[in-house]
Order: sequence, then C-alpha cells, then structure tokens
Amino acid sequence: MKIMISGAAVLTMEQGSALIPDGEIIIEGQYITHVGPAGSVSPEQNFDRVIDARGMLAMPGFVNCHTHASMTLLRGYADDLPLMEWLQKKIWPVEERLEPEDIYWGAMLSCLEMIRSGTTTFADMYFHMDEVARAVEKAGMRASLSQGLIGLSPGAGEALSNSRRFIREWHGQAEGRITTMLGPHAPYTCPPDFLARVLDMADELKVGIHIHIAETRAEIEEIQQKYGKTPVALMEQVGLFNFPVLAAHCVHLTDEDIRILVARGAGIAHNPESNMKLASGIAPVTRLLAAGALVGLGTDGAASNNNLDMMEEMRSAALLQKVATMDPMALPAQDALAMATVNGARVLGLKDVGPLKPGNKADIILVNLDRPHFYPRHNLMAHLVYAARASDVETVIIDGRLVMENRQVLTLDEERIYYEVQKRAEKLVGAVRS
Amino acid sequence: MKIMISGAAVLTMEQGSALIPDGEIIIEGQYITHVGPAGSVSPEQNFDRVIDARGMLAMPGFVNCHTHASMTLLRGYADDLPLMEWLQKKIWPVEERLEPEDIYWGAMLSCLEMIRSGTTTFADMYFHMDEVARAVEKAGMRASLSQGLIGLSPGAGEALSNSRRFIREWHGQAEGRITTMLGPHAPYTCPPDFLARVLDMADELKVGIHIHIAETRAEIEEIQQKYGKTPVALMEQVGLFNFPVLAAHCVHLTDEDIRILVARGAGIAHNPESNMKLASGIAPVTRLLAAGALVGLGTDGAASNNNLDMMEEMRSAALLQKVATMDPMALPAQDALAMATVNGARVLGLKDVGPLKPGNKADIILVNLDRPHFYPRHNLMAHLVYAARASDVETVIIDGRLVMENRQVLTLDEERIYYEVQKRAEKLVGAVRS
Ligand SMILES: [Zn+2]
Ligand SMILES: [Zn+2]
Repeated sequence: MKIMISGAAVLTMEQGSALIPDGEIIIEGQYITHVGPAGSVSPEQNFDRVIDARGMLAMPGFVNCHTHASMTLLRGYADDLPLMEWLQKKIWPVEERLEPEDIYWGAMLSCLEMIRSGTTTFADMYFHMDEVARAVEKAGMRASLSQGLIGLSPGAGEALSNSRRFIREWHGQAEGRITTMLGPHAPYTCPPDFLARVLDMADELKVGIHIHIAETRAEIEEIQQKYGKTPVALMEQVGLFNFPVLAAHCVHLTDEDIRILVARGAGIAHNPESNMKLASGIAPVTRLLAAGALVGLGTDGAASNNNLDMMEEMRSAALLQKVATMDPMALPAQDALAMATVNGARVLGLKDVGPLKPGNKADIILVNLDRPHFYPRHNLMAHLVYAARASDVETVIIDGRLVMENRQVLTLDEERIYYEVQKRAEKLVGAVRS
Repeated sequence: MKIMISGAAVLTMEQGSALIPDGEIIIEGQYITHVGPAGSVSPEQNFDRVIDARGMLAMPGFVNCHTHASMTLLRGYADDLPLMEWLQKKIWPVEERLEPEDIYWGAMLSCLEMIRSGTTTFADMYFHMDEVARAVEKAGMRASLSQGLIGLSPGAGEALSNSRRFIREWHGQAEGRITTMLGPHAPYTCPPDFLARVLDMADELKVGIHIHIAETRAEIEEIQQKYGKTPVALMEQVGLFNFPVLAAHCVHLTDEDIRILVARGAGIAHNPESNMKLASGIAPVTRLLAAGALVGLGTDGAASNNNLDMMEEMRSAALLQKVATMDPMALPAQDALAMATVNGARVLGLKDVGPLKPGNKADIILVNLDRPHFYPRHNLMAHLVYAARASDVETVIIDGRLVMENRQVLTLDEERIYYEVQKRAEKLVGAVRS
C-alpha cells in the first residue's frame, strides 16, 4: 500500500524542526518514505491512495506510556474515595472476578477510545495479557505489553513462568506492532528476591521492565521503613536499572533519585491526571527534564483518570507544572508535545517510531483545524497543547494502515464493544454486590 | 414555541434530586413547564417540535462565570511567558489597538466556541461592550456584561459614564437574556476613591459588581503595602460587599477573607486553568465550600486558558483540589457539576436560571452518551465530570430556543467568523510587530 498525504500542515516533531505549513508525506507499507513541502513529490508517482488533508495538521500519533487498558470496565465505578477504600472495597473485589473475555472486551473499549483520541501506541500492564494482545492485534494499534507480577502473591512463580510464555508467544507479533516487557508491579509488592528472579528472566529474554515506582507517600514510607532507602535507590541496589526500564509515576523523588534515573537512562511515564485524582502528588517533571531525564506521558487506567485522552493529559501536564513551580514558563508547549509523542516512543524503547521522517514507522494522526478553538492561527503548537481536544483528531494511521478515517474507526465494531462491555460490567458489579 | 424532549436521561441538578433515567421535558416559550419520567406527559398534548433524545443526557447548560470573550483574538498569541512580559509586551500592545469591530468578531468566535461546548450563559468583562452585547444578541446566548473600568487610567471618569449608558441601554435586552454589572477591574487598578464612585453608581442603577480579587501574590503584596490590608478586607472597608458581587479568582485568601466573603454572600468565580497557566496559584475552593461560600466556575479569557471549555474546566477544578489538599475526596463530582451549572447561575444573580424545573428558563443541553468514554454506565455524574468532553454536547437550547442541533450552530455563520477573526488577528499582530 502506497499512500500520499497532501495539503496538511506537518508537525514532524524532529528535533529543532519547524512546522511545514503545506506539506506532503509518502507512506510505503509500514514506513514513511518522504516528508517535504508541497511540490516535493514528483507528479509521476502512482499511489494506491491520496489523502487530501487540506485544513488538517499531520503529526506523530500519541504514545500513552502507562495504562491498564481493561480497567475501562471499572470507569466511573468508584470515584471520590480514599485510596485504600477505593482499592480494597471497590477495585480489587471486581478485579478478582475478571475473566479472560472481560479483559478482552475492556481492552477493546480502550483501543476504540484511544484510536478515537489519536493514540497510536500504548504501554499496558495487567493480567490475562493474551487477551489484551488479541485486542491490540484486532484494533491495529501498536503496544508494549507486560503481564503484571505481584511478588508477594502465592501464585508469583507461576505468573513469572506465564510471563515467559507470553513474551515468547507475543513479542514481535502483529507485524511487529506488539512488543513486550516484564511487569513487576512495584517495589512494595515485589520484594528484592523476587525482583532478582524477574531480572534473570529479563536477561534471558532480552526485554525491558515496566514497573510502578514512587507513586505515593505511603510507598515511600513503607520502603524506607523496610529497607532504609527510597524506592529508586532500592531498585538501583537490586540492579533493575541494568535493564531498559519504564518507570511509571515517579511522583516522590529525592535529588539523588533523579540523579540515578538520569544516569541509568530510565524512561519515566508521567501520569498527571491519575496522580491528581488519587491525590498521590505532583511529579517533579520540571526538575526531571532539567536534569536530562527521559519523560513520556501516560493516562494510567480509566478507573483513576477516567478517560484515555492524551490531548487532555498533555494539557494537564503543562498546566500542573506551571502552578506547581509557580512559573508560567515551566513545561512549555513544545516540551509537553514531545513528552506526549516522540519522547514517549523513546520511553518504550521503540527505535523507529516517533518523528515524522523517512525510515520511521507510519504512525500519523490528522487533526482537523476547522474548529473555533483553533482560531486565530497565531501558533499551532500552542493550540495543540492549550486548546485542542481529542475529537479534533479526524484520521489515524498506524503502521502505514488507515485505522480511523473521518472519525470512523475502521478496525472495530463500536456497537458490539459497547454491548459486551456494558453486559460484563453489570455482571461484575452485580456479583460483587451480592 | 412548545417543545417536548423525550427519551433522555435527565440530570435536573435540583438539590438532592436523583437522575431520571428516562425523562420528559416540556418547554413553552422561554420556560420549562414540565420535567418528569417517561409517560408523565399526557399523549393529547400538541407540540411544535418533539426532540427524540434517546441515548442523550439532558442537563442545565454550563454557566461560565468569568471570561473576556473578545480575547479569543489573542488565543495562542503569547504563551509560556512570565506574567509581566506577557501583559506588557504582548497582551496590552494588541489590546490598545482593538477596534469595536474586532471586539465584535472576537466575541462572536467566543459565542460559537461556547455554544459548541455546551455553555449557555457567560459573564464578561472587557471594553467596547456594546459589541459584545450585539454578539450575544445574535448568538442567542445569555450573558452578564460589564464594561471594564481602570480607575487609575486618565479616561476613568468617561468610562464610568459610558458604563451608565451601557447598563441603561442593554440591561434586560435580548428578551431579557442580557443583564449587566459594573466592572471595576481590580483593587490594584481601582483605588478606594474611584470604587466609591462605582458603588454610588451601582446604588443608582441597582446592579451588581464584577471584579477581579486576590488573583496573584503580587496583588496581595501591593495592596498590603499600600493599605495594610488584604484585597478582600480592603473591599469590605470600601463597602463593595453591600452590593451583589461577582469576585473573579480569589486565589490567595486568609481565613478572615473567607469569613468576609461568606458572611457577605459574595459570588466567587473560580478559574482553575487560567490560575494554573499563569502560575497565579491554587484557589482554596475546598475551604471556601466548607465555609459555605457560593462558588461558580469560569474559564477566564482565551489568552490565558486557551479555550472556553467548561467540561474541561470542571474536571480541572475537581482534579486540582484533590491534589492540592492531598485528599481524593475533595471536590467530588456532584459539587464540581453544581459549580459549573446551577451555582454559577446563582453567582451571576440569575434567579430563574439553573436547575431543570418548571418555572426556570429553558437553558438545556443534550449530551450524546454514545461514546467510548461513557461506557460502561456505572455512574453518569462521574462520567460527566471525569470523562466527558465538550464535543459530546449535541444540542443546545437557550431561553427556549434551539441554538445548536446535532452539532450545527443555528444562529451563527462559522465560516464568516473564522474569516473575520483570522483577518483581524493578522492585522493586529502585524501592527504591533511593525
Ligand atoms: Zn498504573
Ligand atoms: Zn479575568
């Protein structure tokens, strides 16, 4: 399949690159083969498809660096509660009852919502991950998938072997759109001896690690009490950072923690709205970036957000840093955009995903600029971060394939997903109540 | 015109009222005359129009308690800058050049954006307010309009007389959709002797006062230094609170300030996103509400937000209070919704606008629930606050009149507005640059 996109403003998100006001993009198979100004493509070329994108902006798709896709099943089920009551009385009892088919349909709803809001790649940690992988394959998305591992639970050894099987079975599948990681849940649920086993397996399988670190004050206190260290320092001692790491949250960090994360090249998934909603705290993103850390953006699961909208997450990230540091220059539009797109791809270790340039995978979204909130056109980058909304995303291309066009998702059956999800949610909540 | 809305879930926002899962609403002329469950309307009645709202949620329209509508002209013109540089080098030089026609088209763009995101009423403070009133009249919106007054400027006396003329000419116009207030800008731009003249006029004209109070730390320091008081205490001494007051921002407040605002029944417009973006601070909304204060929600102008999206503002308000107080129970969904709708109407002093009930003006929006982020249907109120987006608003009724239907705005010419706004913005910025 050879596609040409013409007439769009092109925001390549290449380092230091300007916006191409009227650009042309060529996609061949899974890859971008050309990005240039109008007239840069010779008129002799033949295309299977020419997309007239006048009035649109083309940019890299969003990369959601941390979520739990199937938790859409729990969206709005429990809000405005203290954290432990929320977990113990609401979330966990339902999660205990989740069956593989529930996980599948929850992930399908997530994929639908993510595609419709311009996300092309996501990183997921949950259980029954084969089901999530199937949903990703069907939806046509790109994803980095990790089976969540609770070292303290009785079935931890079995879950670890199952992770090996999952990684062997799925890594590189769906034409390479699926990659995998090991998913030890967090320092407070995975003690050092269990983490040692996980790291052995990471070495064996040559995969990275997706883990929650330093999310809440309670975690910091617990780890400090047990080990006399911060969670980041404990992970350093365990040897976690000898592997590629995707560290979710990183809300409560000392200067030394930041030094370790930067020196060891850890990727960080910042989740501002989940951290706000659960009152976990405000991550020191400005300090992290100043120190040279690699930071992407994630929504976390829909039980604590409650949507998977990266446009909104990007705006919340920028606004929250400004007020937290009392500096209106903190996290400017360009940095927020990079976090939500190209730097997110780096956080997931994806080498040929990110900026719109030849040789990269064709993960491209078209944003419809014909909206009141995009006028006047003083600054498109500022508009994207401070004024845009998810529904402005008109067309989504992932891995060179049209996945949404004119807001019609081409890979998924919306009505069927709504029906299945509603039925399963009612069953789950009914079972917990009775 | 007699309209019936049938099949919608109805969120009346009456105190303590539950959601009507399948409801019926009758509108006659400007008013709601019936709200009840399916089957409560006798089948013999005749209607000019029956709106089949199955799959929709009907609720009161949003009330944007504080904005500067025409500043949409400056959207994205200057971001990520220190406050004084932003004002002095960017905003003020352009504002100085604004002509009445610019103000009109800026307000038209605002009205378009607000209608498309479910806002039915707004409170505005700016200059050349006749132009804003004309835009409101044309758009079919409801608005409380104030000519901004800078007591320290040489033309202050003339502006005050012009305010009298504006109020006499426009108060109650547009079938009663337009109300007016006096608009002394802020304590630091309007000294006590000037405020005394404003209050005399408020007494003469029987109108309320729209004013910015306690927005930044710099303001607190300046007023403290000049008068040995907080801005709220100074306003109390001046006698401001003898009149109905719409106090925008109220970010930096002492306990005594809160006591005064509550005791004097002042209406407060909370502007979380503007306060975040300009790094002004986080208003103590949770403390205000606990003390019994009346708090509505506003977007502020599009130069500091940069959209006029009340769905987003409501979510930001709820999330920001949770993280600021480190309490996930702070500002729960129901309170955020009330701030954005019925309490906002009270803040503007509108007696028959707010909850969906017979006798109130018919300001109603229909939200399309057929969206991935509204599934599953555990809790519609939580979905509205934590997951909804402005584009979910399908239909808007203001004062009994269909203003938007199926996302088509019926009162405004979108293409013309885009054209005029773009042309004027380019002219203004070109003039400042040269
Ligand atoms: Zn998580
Ligand atoms: Zn203002």
